[in-house]
Parts: sequence; C-alpha cells; structure tokens
Amino acid sequence: MHFVALVVQKYGGSSVATAERIKRVAERIVAARKGGDDVVVVVSAMGDTTDELLDLANQVSPLPPGRELDMLLTAGERISMALLAMAIHNLGYEARSFTGSQAGVITTSVHGRARIMDVTPGRLKGALDEGAVVIVAGFQGVSQDTKDVTTLGRGGSDTTAVALAAALQADVCEIYTDVDGIFTADPRIVPNARHIKQITYEEMLELAACGAKVLHLRSVEYARRAELPIHVRSSYSTNTGTMVIGSMEDLPVEQALITGVAHDRSEAKITIVGVPDEPGAAARIFETAAGAEINIDMIVQNVSTEGTGRTDISFTLPKTDGPTAMSALSKIQETVNFKGLLYDDHVGKVSLIGAGMRSHPGVAAGFFAALGQAGVNIEMISTSEIRVSVVCRDSDLDAAVSAIHEAFDLGGDGEAVVYAGTGR
Amino acid sequence: MHFVALVVQKYGGSSVATAERIKRVAERIVAARKGGDDVVVVVSAMGDTTDELLDLANQVSPLPPGRELDMLLTAGERISMALLAMAIHNLGYEARSFTGSQAGVITTSVHGRARIMDVTPGRLKGALDEGAVVIVAGFQGVSQDTKDVTTLGRGGSDTTAVALAAALQADVCEIYTDVDGIFTADPRIVPNARHIKQITYEEMLELAACGAKVLHLRSVEYARRAELPIHVRSSYSTNTGTMVIGSMEDLPVEQALITGVAHDRSEAKITIVGVPDEPGAAARIFETAAGAEINIDMIVQNVSTEGTGRTDISFTLPKTDGPTAMSALSKIQETVNFKGLLYDDHVGKVSLIGAGMRSHPGVAAGFFAALGQAGVNIEMISTSEIRVSVVCRDSDLDAAVSAIHEAFDLGGDGEAVVYAGTGR
Repeated sequence: MHFVALVVQKYGGSSVATAERIKRVAERIVAARKGGDDVVVVVSAMGDTTDELLDLANQVSPLPPGRELDMLLTAGERISMALLAMAIHNLGYEARSFTGSQAGVITTSVHGRARIMDVTPGRLKGALDEGAVVIVAGFQGVSQDTKDVTTLGRGGSDTTAVALAAALQADVCEIYTDVDGIFTADPRIVPNARHIKQITYEEMLELAACGAKVLHLRSVEYARRAELPIHVRSSYSTNTGTMVIGSMEDLPVEQALITGVAHDRSEAKITIVGVPDEPGAAARIFETAAGAEINIDMIVQNVSTEGTGRTDISFTLPKTDGPTAMSALSKIQETVNFKGLLYDDHVGKVSLIGAGMRSHPGVAAGFFAALGQAGVNIEMISTSEIRVSVVCRDSDLDAAVSAIHEAFDLGGDGEAVVYAGTGR
Repeated sequence: MHFVALVVQKYGGSSVATAERIKRVAERIVAARKGGDDVVVVVSAMGDTTDELLDLANQVSPLPPGRELDMLLTAGERISMALLAMAIHNLGYEARSFTGSQAGVITTSVHGRARIMDVTPGRLKGALDEGAVVIVAGFQGVSQDTKDVTTLGRGGSDTTAVALAAALQADVCEIYTDVDGIFTADPRIVPNARHIKQITYEEMLELAACGAKVLHLRSVEYARRAELPIHVRSSYSTNTGTMVIGSMEDLPVEQALITGVAHDRSEAKITIVGVPDEPGAAARIFETAAGAEINIDMIVQNVSTEGTGRTDISFTLPKTDGPTAMSALSKIQETVNFKGLLYDDHVGKVSLIGAGMRSHPGVAAGFFAALGQAGVNIEMISTSEIRVSVVCRDSDLDAAVSAIHEAFDLGGDGEAVVYAGTGR
C-alpha cells in the first residue's frame, strides 16, 4: 500500500531556461504524480530573464523605485510557471499555476528583499484536493500592509519552496540543481571530493554562509525551524542527492569530525586606516554600514599602534555592496576622523565545517598548519563552534581548499566519516 | 483658473515597443500631469511581446489551457507598465502600476475573451488622491467566480481604458495610436481622404465593425453606454484627433449625409453547396458555427434551384476562424446532407457609412452605380439603417474604395459635410 505523500519540488532558472528543458521538467513532475504523490512545484524565472528585465529597467531609469522593480521582475516567474503548467497539461495531467500572492505568500513590504511573514495556501490546497499539480512562482509574495507585489531577493525561490512545504506539512522539499547534491569540496577544485548523503541543518547553515551556493541560507534557517527535510538533488539524473535533516544535538559525538570545505570568491575587504582608538568610533562606522544596508561578514580590529592612539579596522562584505559601502564611509571620514579607506576585491575565503569540531580542539591547529605548509598567507580569521574560516589572497584560494581537504583526509579513498561540502 | 480634469490615456504596443519609446510616452504623460490633470494610463504589452509569448506557449503545448495562456500573456503588460512607471518616476513624478486584478477589473471567467462585469477602482482612487500617476495593465482582469487571471481578447486594452474612464468618471478617454484619428477613408488608398473632427458612437460602431482597426468595437459600445467621450489621436504629434461623442439622434437631419468609406481584408467566405431546402437545415448549420465559437458576419441564401430541392448558403467570417469552421461543418455534412463546402479567402468588404443615410434613400443606388462603373462585381450585400456593405474580390477592393469615396465627393476639396472613415 502506498501512502500518498506531499512533495514540494523547486526548479531553478537553468532547469527551465528553454522550452525543451521545461518539457523535461514536466516529465519529471508527471513521473512523481504517477507514483501517487501530490506535487507542488516552485519555479524560478527562465534562464537569464531576470537579468534581461533588470537591463530594460536600467534603460528607462538609473534608480528605479523598488515597488516597480518588483512588479517588473515578477513577470519572469509568471512566464515560466504558466509554460510549465501547459507542458504538464500536454502530458495529460491537470496543472494550475499560482503567483506568490495567489499562493498566499504574505511578506513584509521591503521591496527587493521582503521576508515571508505567513503562508496561507488555501487555494493551493483546493487545487491539490482536485487532483491538480500545483505550480507556484518562486521569489515573490504580497505585502501584508500595502498589498503590493514583493520579491524575496536572490535565492528567494528556495525560501518559497521551504515555506510552502512547511505550511502544507509536506513530507519533503526537493531542491533541484545542476549537481547531485553536496560534496566535501567543490569537485571542480578537488577531483576526489566525496558526495554527502546526509547533513544537519547547522552544518548546512555554515556551508551556505561560507559560500556554498546550492542552498540559500534563509531557506535552511526556515527548514530548521519547521523541522522539514530538504533533499538537494540533480535535475539531470535520478540519483539520490543530499538530505538536509536532523540536528547536531542528535549526532553521536564520535561520528562526524569534519563535514567539508567551503570557499567563497564573492567578498571584498575594506580597511579603514587610522581610526581614533576611542569609545564609539567603531560603533559609528558599523552603524553607518548598517544604515547603508551593507551585510558585513568578518571584522578584524588591530591592536592600537603604540603612541599614535589610532588603529586599523578591516571587514569583509559582498563585492556587490562595495561601492555603496565606500561611498557611505567616505561621508563620515571627517566626523569619525579616520585617515583613509582601502578597498581590496582580490580576497578569498576558505572554511572548514564540522559538527564534531566541538569536541576536538585540535582541528583549528591542523587547519592553520595545512595552510602554512601550502604557503597560504592568512589575512583574517573567524571561528564558530563548528567552523574555522580565513581570508587569503584570491589567487591562493584553490590551493588552500585542496590542502585542507587533503589534510583532513576528506577524499574519496580516505577513511573519514564525512558528510558536507560546497555545492558548486 | 484650471479645473482639475481626470484623463485616461491608452497607449498601444507599438507606442511602448522599446525603452526609448517608453521614455517618450512618459514625457507625454508628465506633460499632462504638469498641466494639472489627474492621469490614469492604460498600457498594452511592448511591441511583439504577446506574439513571442504565444510562440513559447506553442513550443511546450499545441493546445495550451486557457487559464495558463492568460497567466502567461498577462506577463506582457506587467513588464510594460512597470517600465513606464519607472520612466515617469525618473522624470520626478510619482507613478504606480497596477495589474488588472489590482485595478479592480472584474470579468467573466471565459479565458482569452473575458468580458468586464464590474470595475472597482478603489486602489486607483487612493493612488490618485496621493498625487500619483496611475498606470494600469490593459487587456486583463480577474474572474469574479474563480479569482483567476483573465484576458479580454484582441483590442482588449481599448476596452480596459474606456471601462476605467467610466468607473472613475473621467472627463475623456484618449486612445493613442499611430495616426491623427479617423479619416473618410484609408489615406493609403485614397490620398485626399479627409480628417474627421467628430463622429457619433453609432457611426464609429459601424466603422469598427466594417474593418476600421483604430478602435475596438467593444470599447465603443462601452463608451456609448457610459456616454464617455473618446479622443482618438496620434502618439507622434500633439494634433487634435477625432472625438467620438454624441448620439445620432442629436444630429440635425440635414447635416451629415455620409461619414466615410471602410474596408476589410480580414474575412473569408464559406459556401455550403447543395443544402436540402427544408426547415431546420440552415438552423443546424448556424448552430454548429455558433457552437464552434465562429463569428459570422454576412449571410446569403440563394433561391432554391428549380426542381432540385436544394440551395447554396454563403457566409463570411474572420479568416482566423476559417479552419475551425471548415472542420466543424465537414463533421455535419452527412446529417445535414449537403453536397460540399467551398472556402474562399480572396474576398474583400467595402462599406459606406453615414447617419444621414436614414433620410436619403438614394444612397444605396449611388453606391451600386459607382461600383458598377468601376467594374467591381458584387458577391454579397448587407445593409443597416446607416450602412451599405458589399463583398467583392479582394483584388477589386482598392478600386471600390476609391470609386465610392469619389462618387460621394468625400475628398478634401469636396463640399460634403463629412466626418468619418477608416483609421488604418
């Protein structure tokens, strides 16, 4: 006897980039439906649609209002979801598409990066009860206050999928991507990187925060709160991918020492030179950054140079926030009275993640030793209970990843019990 | 002192086909706003967007479901309206875009050709009260029953504009097109065709039904019921165009004999050969056509051929309905017991329209005489109180239009009081 399961599947833009690929995805969805499961599909805009729409926007206005930009961009998923519903219909199955608003994805009113506040999927339930496959636009919702259309920001479709799966009490949320799941390191850098069968939410959160692009950070947070399993798998194969499930607290202490190595090339480093070493100076700098909506990652404050009463502060941030941050900080140079600003976009970040790290204090030492032997100079350090990260030159990044992966014996022929790493 | 007027402006797809044209339309809208008027703008999809989306739909499904096709096509106006709002915002004016659903355009649930049942423009009024220019997606609405997104069919944006203007009690509805309004004939066929300053709803209805594409028939019907003036004008000039206003009943009898000449190349003719001359045969044929949603225009039934007990029935219909009609009719050939079907897509229709025709019985005679002198063979005839139409060979159509225009002295140097004709 087959118990009917409810599966939420999410397909990214590259999976639906052309009419041909949409038809292939439709076949995959119909296969799940034929197996007896109820299926809800979350879909992104086709291929480069979002970038093409942004380009059009820039042609008519250098600084388009957020409300209208969200109205424009949400046309992208509208197109892909309707086409996917048609393709499924053409295979003889009933399918209905719903916008974020129709699906009951209620958000804050911050255009461009709204947060999901509630999900009221009444219409989706009705369509499922009638036997239809439900297609929902990812990345979008409707503001609770203004009733305007909103978008959730980059990677928002993952969050849509997890939020719907939680609201519908789905059995699993499948995130389809172009790789077979999560590996102990990026296989393009480390050829013998191992595939991971299962990983905890905490480890996945650290990986996502450290550059693994396969799952968006917010979607993992959401899944952890809802205790919803995520299955990360390839849309090009039927292989089992990686299950994100369970808490670190439930792991046997002796099991997982290290899960994997993540890396990130998307950050830049800003150094504020000659900051007066007095109370409030650093606070004013980071208040300014926060006011400009800059996401700061790592921060290092040097010991004050003897006799000068001044120090340097460095921090990392997404390269895309770089120009905004430099402009905001230069405006407070006089009031804060610092000497100058340096911008460096040739940095990389490498991280080692593992739940077992908590009970093995020697991990950090081994990490730094491996980097030293590989001749990688360390510029900044940051740690958490289950992670060690350093910033180095971007030209050293591949060597750093390989050295650490090798030092902790994470490769396919090694003995380590491993289950994590970067996606792509 | 300037009384604040409320103006609804409608721009078609060619007026917003590129980012450059969108910026030009934005300037025009801002000029009206600067003049002190409240402005509501209805906009179609950019250029060929609708056709491109239809092409994508056909790539994934030969017969896409109407609900999903409407979901897909409405992405087109979503893009153009958001871009137009951005372009206006860039000129320093507040602008907000609204989908058909957000604008309160409530329709029937017939996908692809829904009818507007009600307009509840609460959100538009709110935005106008706050001083914003309001941009609304043409061609689309939301079904009262299913809450699904609907489209109004070809030319639906004109109807959206008129319906919103009526609901908002606007002072005028301006329809922007690529000509300066309405002429006594198509100037590409008749070089001395005259521009018409004013025309009644009834005359405009006949013109629209006879092939003048400048205004959609349903929008004129809507405007007549609401007694709303329509100003048809060019988006490429600031010239005054043609006002559609007032009823035929209000015209002085002696004024307008003839308004203009319309022509139509978009129809085909189907002849059903050897239909049994018995009660019910014709009824079954036209019930079949109605069941297949075919829009029939003119019908001619020959006198029964002596001794055979059979007759021929011919009718005209849009060429686009041709294949569907032939397929539906061939299915009833046995039950109705007719001999055969002929399809002819080389016909043209020429019409003479004029409110004054009612009190001047000689008009039809002059019309046929002019066609006879021009050597045009008449295949079918149809008349109304204010119109005479004939079907002829499509190769004779230009000659027919010129001959009639000349015979009734409608040209620029003539003396006739004229005010109508085809747009383009």
